Amino acid sequence: MTKWVYAFGDGKAEGQAGMKNLLGGKGANLAEMSNLGLPVPPGFSITTEVCTHYYANRETYPTDLKDQVDAAIKKVGELAHGNFGDPAKPLLVSVRSGARVSMPGMMDTVLNLGLNAATTEGLAKLTGDARFAYDSYRRFIQMYSDVVLGVEHSTFEEILDEEKDAKGVELDTDLDAEDLKRIADRFKKSVEKELKKPFPEDVQEQLWGAIGAVFGSWESPRANTYRKLHNIPADWGTAVTVQAMVFGNRGETSATGVAFTRDPATGEKLLYGEFLINAQGEDVVAGIRTPQPISKIVRERQGGKKPSMEEAMPKAYDELKAIGERLEQHYRDMQDVEFTVQEGKLFMLQTRSGKRTAEAALKAAVDMVREKLIDQDTAVSRVDPAALDQLLHPTLDPDAPKVEIAAGLGASPGAATGEVVFTADEAEKLAADNHDVILVRTETSPEDIHGMHAAKGILTARGGMTSHAAVVARGMGRPCVSGAGSLKIDIAKGEMTSGGFTVKRGEVITIDGAAGKVYKGAVKMRQPELTGDFSTLMAWADAVRTLKVRTNADTPVDAATARKFGAQGIGLCRTEHMFFESDRIVAVRQMILADTEAERKAALDKLLPIQRGDFEGIFKTMEGLPVTIRLLDPPLHEFLPHKESEIAEVSKASGVSVEKLKARAAALHESNPMLGHRGCRLGITYPEIYEMQARAILEAAANVVAAGGKPVQLEIMVPLVGYKAELDRLAARIAEVAEDIKKAKGSVPEYMIGTMIELPRAALRASEIAETAEFFSFGTNDLTQTTLGLSRDDAGMFLNEYINKGVIARDPFVSIDVDGVGELIRIAATRGRQTRNSLKLGICGEHGGDPDSIRFCHDTGLDYVSCSPFRVPVARLAAAQAALAERKRKS
Amino acid sequence: MTKWVYAFGDGKAEGQAGMKNLLGGKGANLAEMSNLGLPVPPGFSITTEVCTHYYANRETYPTDLKDQVDAAIKKVGELAHGNFGDPAKPLLVSVRSGARVSMPGMMDTVLNLGLNAATTEGLAKLTGDARFAYDSYRRFIQMYSDVVLGVEHSTFEEILDEEKDAKGVELDTDLDAEDLKRIADRFKKSVEKELKKPFPEDVQEQLWGAIGAVFGSWESPRANTYRKLHNIPADWGTAVTVQAMVFGNRGETSATGVAFTRDPATGEKLLYGEFLINAQGEDVVAGIRTPQPISKIVRERQGGKKPSMEEAMPKAYDELKAIGERLEQHYRDMQDVEFTVQEGKLFMLQTRSGKRTAEAALKAAVDMVREKLIDQDTAVSRVDPAALDQLLHPTLDPDAPKVEIAAGLGASPGAATGEVVFTADEAEKLAADNHDVILVRTETSPEDIHGMHAAKGILTARGGMTSHAAVVARGMGRPCVSGAGSLKIDIAKGEMTSGGFTVKRGEVITIDGAAGKVYKGAVKMRQPELTGDFSTLMAWADAVRTLKVRTNADTPVDAATARKFGAQGIGLCRTEHMFFESDRIVAVRQMILADTEAERKAALDKLLPIQRGDFEGIFKTMEGLPVTIRLLDPPLHEFLPHKESEIAEVSKASGVSVEKLKARAAALHESNPMLGHRGCRLGITYPEIYEMQARAILEAAANVVAAGGKPVQLEIMVPLVGYKAELDRLAARIAEVAEDIKKAKGSVPEYMIGTMIELPRAALRASEIAETAEFFSFGTNDLTQTTLGLSRDDAGMFLNEYINKGVIARDPFVSIDVDGVGELIRIAATRGRQTRNSLKLGICGEHGGDPDSIRFCHDTGLDYVSCSPFRVPVARLAAAQAALAERKRKS
Repeated sequence: MTKWVYAFGDGKAEGQAGMKNLLGGKGANLAEMSNLGLPVPPGFSITTEVCTHYYANRETYPTDLKDQVDAAIKKVGELAHGNFGDPAKPLLVSVRSGARVSMPGMMDTVLNLGLNAATTEGLAKLTGDARFAYDSYRRFIQMYSDVVLGVEHSTFEEILDEEKDAKGVELDTDLDAEDLKRIADRFKKSVEKELKKPFPEDVQEQLWGAIGAVFGSWESPRANTYRKLHNIPADWGTAVTVQAMVFGNRGETSATGVAFTRDPATGEKLLYGEFLINAQGEDVVAGIRTPQPISKIVRERQGGKKPSMEEAMPKAYDELKAIGERLEQHYRDMQDVEFTVQEGKLFMLQTRSGKRTAEAALKAAVDMVREKLIDQDTAVSRVDPAALDQLLHPTLDPDAPKVEIAAGLGASPGAATGEVVFTADEAEKLAADNHDVILVRTETSPEDIHGMHAAKGILTARGGMTSHAAVVARGMGRPCVSGAGSLKIDIAKGEMTSGGFTVKRGEVITIDGAAGKVYKGAVKMRQPELTGDFSTLMAWADAVRTLKVRTNADTPVDAATARKFGAQGIGLCRTEHMFFESDRIVAVRQMILADTEAERKAALDKLLPIQRGDFEGIFKTMEGLPVTIRLLDPPLHEFLPHKESEIAEVSKASGVSVEKLKARAAALHESNPMLGHRGCRLGITYPEIYEMQARAILEAAANVVAAGGKPVQLEIMVPLVGYKAELDRLAARIAEVAEDIKKAKGSVPEYMIGTMIELPRAALRASEIAETAEFFSFGTNDLTQTTLGLSRDDAGMFLNEYINKGVIARDPFVSIDVDGVGELIRIAATRGRQTRNSLKLGICGEHGGDPDSIRFCHDTGLDYVSCSPFRVPVARLAAAQAALAERKRKS
Repeated sequence: MTKWVYAFGDGKAEGQAGMKNLLGGKGANLAEMSNLGLPVPPGFSITTEVCTHYYANRETYPTDLKDQVDAAIKKVGELAHGNFGDPAKPLLVSVRSGARVSMPGMMDTVLNLGLNAATTEGLAKLTGDARFAYDSYRRFIQMYSDVVLGVEHSTFEEILDEEKDAKGVELDTDLDAEDLKRIADRFKKSVEKELKKPFPEDVQEQLWGAIGAVFGSWESPRANTYRKLHNIPADWGTAVTVQAMVFGNRGETSATGVAFTRDPATGEKLLYGEFLINAQGEDVVAGIRTPQPISKIVRERQGGKKPSMEEAMPKAYDELKAIGERLEQHYRDMQDVEFTVQEGKLFMLQTRSGKRTAEAALKAAVDMVREKLIDQDTAVSRVDPAALDQLLHPTLDPDAPKVEIAAGLGASPGAATGEVVFTADEAEKLAADNHDVILVRTETSPEDIHGMHAAKGILTARGGMTSHAAVVARGMGRPCVSGAGSLKIDIAKGEMTSGGFTVKRGEVITIDGAAGKVYKGAVKMRQPELTGDFSTLMAWADAVRTLKVRTNADTPVDAATARKFGAQGIGLCRTEHMFFESDRIVAVRQMILADTEAERKAALDKLLPIQRGDFEGIFKTMEGLPVTIRLLDPPLHEFLPHKESEIAEVSKASGVSVEKLKARAAALHESNPMLGHRGCRLGITYPEIYEMQARAILEAAANVVAAGGKPVQLEIMVPLVGYKAELDRLAARIAEVAEDIKKAKGSVPEYMIGTMIELPRAALRASEIAETAEFFSFGTNDLTQTTLGLSRDDAGMFLNEYINKGVIARDPFVSIDVDGVGELIRIAATRGRQTRNSLKLGICGEHGGDPDSIRFCHDTGLDYVSCSPFRVPVARLAAAQAALAERKRKS
């Protein structure tokens, strides 16, 4: 005989905390608390296997379930001194769903089940409290009708309001027994009218109705969607927990509440939560009466006037505090509990690990190590790496008033306030005059870099999480909201509109780059504080992780920021970003406009000392750490002016005719530049460009050493290789440059040559490419684009819809598509290392800062991830968690 | 002791034809002819192993080589009645290279080696022909200096011209012994002056110099490049063949010539070739004197006045004819021979299988089966499928005078003459008035389809082998030259320029779509004739092949053409091509401009009957064969007008404001449309489009059957699937439409649902996609673009350079990249069939018409290839050859 029902109560239980899969989270923890001897009302859980059986057998129950439930409820009655359905000694129960993980769309709770006309009367007699009995009854009808029978709850609220109005009172507590009895009657009639059948009086019918509603809700559309998105198998099923009621609505010595064992916002160790006297659970949520804080100190800080639980019910409070500490000791984590005080006696109704902010998670984790509650590794695994971002950037005060103008993607975290400007030049100009500005563009392009740098924040109307604006903003640590689709920008008029709002150039807005929101005017902010706890936790993380963390940095400033955050090298230095600055773009354009190799070389000769200077700055900052430098990657037309006014300007400055400029731009135009003449393809057709870059890199490295600096670990990276022959040709050219320098100066710095793996072909041919390449860096942005055939600049048009409709679970530009792109990475890693055992493997796409992707990189055996400077701490922590997860799997 | 040297002559030989790897092609065939008892001057071959040894041992020879060569040359002397270097009885030899396959860059031939002042004098005495002796000597100095010593051959030509001018004669044959002796002296002095050392008198030095030159040329840059491009391993090496000279320059009874055993242009069975009396081999090539035809009938046809060999040397001719027949019988293939007649006696110097045109290959192959020389399978393997194109299209008369204006890619075979027009509308208008026009565009786009259809040929300034123009032209069977980079088109002026030429609108040009050439005016053409031999060979091919051949066809006309060529179904019917025609583009645009789903549905309702009609036409034509229909694929902006004038026109016609049109076009604009909102992504966001198409397809199929037609084998194909969830959603929608029709009409035609595999992710996830898909069609155009990260529209900018520089061997859009794209296809085929054993596999990219790619498809176990109608015969033959090759491998 299968055991479908597990009982708990009276200091013991048939289940325990480890049985979440069978009993659901709630049921398992109630059993555990029972076993601990905590005051838990008796009850039982119907297992998730019943749910599986239910759906496998055309929505029917196992034949022996009823007997087991009957027996269990009898036992509950014995412990609770009542009989289910017995007017003389009525037993009331709550019925709740309990999946392994909590899930939106599931039926939540029915309280006070077991009441009907007769048992309510009986309860009134037994307790001598008719008001309590009828208050419970009307609550039951209301709740049961809503969640089990599917009756609109507004019906009940209307009746309740009418009755209160008629009596001239405001609060439910001002209604007396008579009122409540009448209200219950009206509720029942209204249900009967709507459903064309009476509200169930039979307590068995009530019970099985509620159980059926829980199982039915497992396949609700909302639950289904949620499961699909979170990869939760449908056959997990839900459990149902039935528990004897205790009553927080038995008068002034009764109460109900929720509490955290530490402050979930800060992590401070105190009982943090709210309670309501003479109420049942749903009142706390409903917000009809304002609950009070549990702890006195919190009440004082908030300036509350009504007493805290600590003051109003000191005995129950002390007991709750002791239980909280007991639970923390037992679970070794901060708990989130529900409780009820019935006539002075405390009962525990739920416990689970408490949700917390990054700040709280950090403090609690470090504190608990100090309290010897947990070890360092556990502390490391307790903090969500993705949430660390909150700690590194200013955030908006959650309580500050705000007027939302527009919403887009939270593309780069942090908040910023400033005057709106619509061009990069304007941003630069105003910033130079000490104005804080927000640069607002339809999209940004590399030509906007100086303006983005000058701005406090960036807002775009178009583009996804890996659009130019998003990537560059994250790299610079600037807050950015991208793809705010409702935004219309009219540069000519000097204004932007969104919905009903119009904002003119110079007016102030505030953006929240974490939430992707745009607000009118200045909004109050909170500055981040990096506490000692942060460095403590990071040090613990570093002790655990095996994956190295580098940064993507193109300037000494970025490099320095990243080192401050713990970067162990540069994984991607994009040389082209150096090409856009005003002192060099002229020479770059001369190079592009050159008609002959000789002209091109002359232009490159001008660029050489500038690039060499750039590299010297970066190498000095990195003090001997590895630096991966990617040779020129973007298509040349990105460097040419496109607007008439710019073309005219460039023509004037360069002496090249407007016609020729336009003709060259037209000749360089591509239908799909992402798949065009870029990366090493440029190096093949214009070898002198890469030669200049190689020379600049090698000479810079030599100069830094000559000036007494540490020799940098040079990794020269050739982008967009698809064929070994491409890398061979270019590696040979670079070797010639090195040989040349050696001849001239007597020596040349050592360097490694490698490639980005960003084309599926490169991944597949990794074995032969590794014959030449000494390292691979996975360019997962481009590899995602090619593997999925998906342009990151254009995907915004439909990717959100894909996610909303559940076609895909996560934006593949944010978190690596492990099944597709991931397989190619695994293939490349395996084949590459087969050829060259020492092959260094890293990742330098935007995924390098995404915790899930970092776990994938760890599991795939990569040597390092590289991410934008502000993501370095996130990556360090995620890498540590990946190492811990692996250790756990293997132990 | 390794045998380095293999002798032949006197009716026997140490080698034979099967030893090409060791003796090279020439040496092996000379040995074979010797064994056959044919008149071959004695000689020997130094093996390719010596070449390998030479490079493996710092360019030195095996120690025992010299002894073996000495012995061999002694033996040759005995057979040829001479002694090498002996003035009394001088033996002269030729030295030739001989790799397994002939290879550009290799040293070719040195004749008359063994002559110096003394032996020449001896030869003169011995033959009593001083003129012959000194003619041979000056030839030797000239040739040896050129190919062995590297002296500029213009030096010798100048001396020769001076001497002829001084004497007032025109031909070499007018020079006498004295003249030639003086010339030889001047040659030697000139060599000594240039090289600062005398021309070698020692015959051993001469011999080893020549042998060294052959081996040295194996590693010449040109040979190296050629090997790399053709995947010829460097360690194959070359052989050297040394052979006793026979002399075609011994007076009027001597001659030299080359002959084919059948006409290499037509395949007609007759001795076809040329000969020169009193000459040596190089004279035939040099073109100083015009050679005569070998056969009398050829002379007569050409209207030649000088006698043919058949007339001038009937005995030698008869002997040559008999030998030719003997060789054909022996080698069972048409031969290309070199011969010399010395004082009336015929000597054979080389035989090899003869190169031939497609026409000749076809006729010869079929004839030889009739002659019982070969079997059907051999005939099938003898014809180059790629060359079949020549037989299906008009070609330019090779002898017609031409003025080349520009050159581009031979994008679609055939030749066409017509008046130049610069817009599709103009093309349509003029064609309607019975003008032949050539449509000239910078690039074509889907909006030009009607003009391309109206034109006789298409010429573009931009775009590669798989550009829009190329693909559409091939599909329509229109000749096309694409990417003629020198072309500048000025539509406003109504003219195009290229180099120094200007062609105005209305002027006539001719394009050669096979060679990629553009000529001024009309050029004489030859119309193709499909002979009975063609169908015979095709029938034999069909009997052998296992791979089915379908066609890519979007209209009943295309479908009918393809069926005529033997297509076994439609592998790709692109529904969007139907959207561009003038009667429907309005509704398509309404659909795109719709603001609501209701508006969009109204527009789709207009399109439904039109599409249904399109499908009915195609289904009727295909008479029950399978038809794969791809649902809408291109991004919607392709359907919107882009030019101001067109926008205004559309605005007027549709009643939609210009602003709205522009705004919609701007909203739909994409940075990389190839990776954008297209394919099934459209189906996900606008499900009603695919629903309309599914309904049109299913209703059309039902209508055709209702009208008495055969039920078509329907395959509905969802493009650009990357995730199984995409296909699932859309398959479910299509099933709903089918269910709907079934409800309304009582039945619905059967159909299969499948997908294109054109994204690397789809290939990798084939196993799960095949849970839903009943067939895969590899869209290798797109799969190549994504796997290689290479846009076919943009690759033209550098792909040629890649091929020229030897980075890649072939355009991956023409022939499948077997290593990269090919691996993904293999992965998808294997994984797909693991899930679904019956999974139908085909290919519908442009590669479906490329013989190498077809072989790959056969070897990978695909069920069919699909190609443009005119490529169907090519594919049938290539598929047969692939089957034969496999059979051979397995036997």
